[in-house]
Amino acid sequence: MIRPFYFDGTSFFILDQRKLPGAEAWIKCTGVNDVADAIKTLAVRGASAIGIAAAYGLVLAAQAGNDLHKAADVLISSRPTAVNLSWAVKKVMNVIGTEKTTKAFKMAKKEAEAIWVEEARANREMARHGADLFVGKKNLSILTHCNTGSLATGGIGTALGVIRELQARAQLKMVYADETRPLLQGGRLTAYELKADNIPVTLIADSMAGWLMRQKKIDAVITGADRIAKNLDAANKIGTYSVAILAHAHGIPFYIAAPMSTFDPDCPSGDKIPIEERAASEITQYGGTQVSADVPVYNPAFDVTPHQLITAIITEDRVFKI
Amino acid sequence: MIRPFYFDGTSFFILDQRKLPGAEAWIKCTGVNDVADAIKTLAVRGASAIGIAAAYGLVLAAQAGNDLHKAADVLISSRPTAVNLSWAVKKVMNVIGTEKTTKAFKMAKKEAEAIWVEEARANREMARHGADLFVGKKNLSILTHCNTGSLATGGIGTALGVIRELQARAQLKMVYADETRPLLQGGRLTAYELKADNIPVTLIADSMAGWLMRQKKIDAVITGADRIAKNLDAANKIGTYSVAILAHAHGIPFYIAAPMSTFDPDCPSGDKIPIEERAASEITQYGGTQVSADVPVYNPAFDVTPHQLITAIITEDRVFKI
Repeated sequence: MIRPFYFDGTSFFILDQRKLPGAEAWIKCTGVNDVADAIKTLAVRGASAIGIAAAYGLVLAAQAGNDLHKAADVLISSRPTAVNLSWAVKKVMNVIGTEKTTKAFKMAKKEAEAIWVEEARANREMARHGADLFVGKKNLSILTHCNTGSLATGGIGTALGVIRELQARAQLKMVYADETRPLLQGGRLTAYELKADNIPVTLIADSMAGWLMRQKKIDAVITGADRIAKNLDAANKIGTYSVAILAHAHGIPFYIAAPMSTFDPDCPSGDKIPIEERAASEITQYGGTQVSADVPVYNPAFDVTPHQLITAIITEDRVFKI
Repeated sequence: MIRPFYFDGTSFFILDQRKLPGAEAWIKCTGVNDVADAIKTLAVRGASAIGIAAAYGLVLAAQAGNDLHKAADVLISSRPTAVNLSWAVKKVMNVIGTEKTTKAFKMAKKEAEAIWVEEARANREMARHGADLFVGKKNLSILTHCNTGSLATGGIGTALGVIRELQARAQLKMVYADETRPLLQGGRLTAYELKADNIPVTLIADSMAGWLMRQKKIDAVITGADRIAKNLDAANKIGTYSVAILAHAHGIPFYIAAPMSTFDPDCPSGDKIPIEERAASEITQYGGTQVSADVPVYNPAFDVTPHQLITAIITEDRVFKI
């Protein structure tokens, strides 16, 4: 399994996911701004992974004797949609309290490690809960969107954890991976992770999912989530909403797998989730080369799937059937 | 308006659409195989445009004194889904009959010109018929998929012709153009054509269409078609089916604009339309560079939208309401 980052006791190293699968480049973060930049620019992405990375950002801030409240603000504001980010930062801040310097560093480090361990445990639990939904079924073809594996979580993954468990239980025939425009997390990361694990994967363009469903080639859809509102509406990578509509139209179950840290108790419903809009160049350019005409672009990074379209939300604690 | 090809009396010149909008490169076709290759490799694409190009392929074959039946077979087999291709080839073959050499060349040339003129006229007629569906409506936001403009037709376009007419009638607020993976005909060609004509356009990734609909930002969808079966099921660029499902789920009208030459009287229903599958590299590579992991790919170039999801089919003769 590919780890998205590690702490060597002094520096936090982040695998630059923007360069995968072509190159394995590590970014050495020595200060909190390095981590915030890595989150902002998507060198590290995935709701759980950016939460853990932000926790280590505070570790670096404590190590440097920075103002921790300022550091927390910088980290929380690095991306707006995934709630795990502020959840992890607040967890570390609560543990540190008013401690300073070496003591603060040690406490932050211990808590960041604990968050990582807990998220990895949650992945394993939700993998079991998720796979249990398919008891007695064989030769399953599962569609997934974006990347929800090790790279997104630091564990076995959320949706991809469930898929890995189905493979371990010999119930899996094929994973169809949406390439996930604009940044191709499906093509670059999910396909890469599944290939590395010898799990059968077929890559498709996002626009092909409906046609696969029409041909009865998809048994279920499983995706992750970046924030789940109180009414169980779920924000996830742009395109998830369309996949949910398509699944519903074809009578295919649509599952979300996410840790409890993705639930935002302060958010009553999906329309209150802030949706990040990103640069036009993510769509009009590839690797610095213009690929499309230079025209105005609408580029929301996420969309919200209303709970009515979600068959169940799989967590480490339980499965919320809707 | 950008023309996709021209005949200089001896050679047929095709604008290489694979290189747009970055470069305007013309391919000089001196023989039928040059034209077949240009069609196969998508230097020229779009149902009407490949029909007209194939007609000129026969002109070149007649000029060279080739076996015309063999030439016709080569052209017809260059791409399988769009029926306009075989329609145009058969039209020219019928006119030539058993004529040979100079006479055959002159007849073929006259018929190819006539087909082009007729397709362009059909575009203008369907633009009017299509725009008439929106009488009394203002500030329309229209979603379209792939490219159906001058480059795809040699005229003002099918779906894009309707859109141009709505702009001329001052009823248009915004065209949302799906970028249309894998080959980005929306981003490279539609956005380019609309920008050149000063028609307001916003480019989106294909996966964003549903989210726009959810936000009530789309008043109607208009696309083209590559083949329409007797029961009015319509094959079009991959992703069209998904857009039709999404439109239906949001109560948004879904229109197809296509000339009568797109109707295949020999095809009873959509499941009988041959769907071309293309190379994995169209998805995994960009401009020769690997962009996704090297895994198996499913890459159908088209899908079929069942007639139940089509509000109406707009042709030069009439509007078929479904």
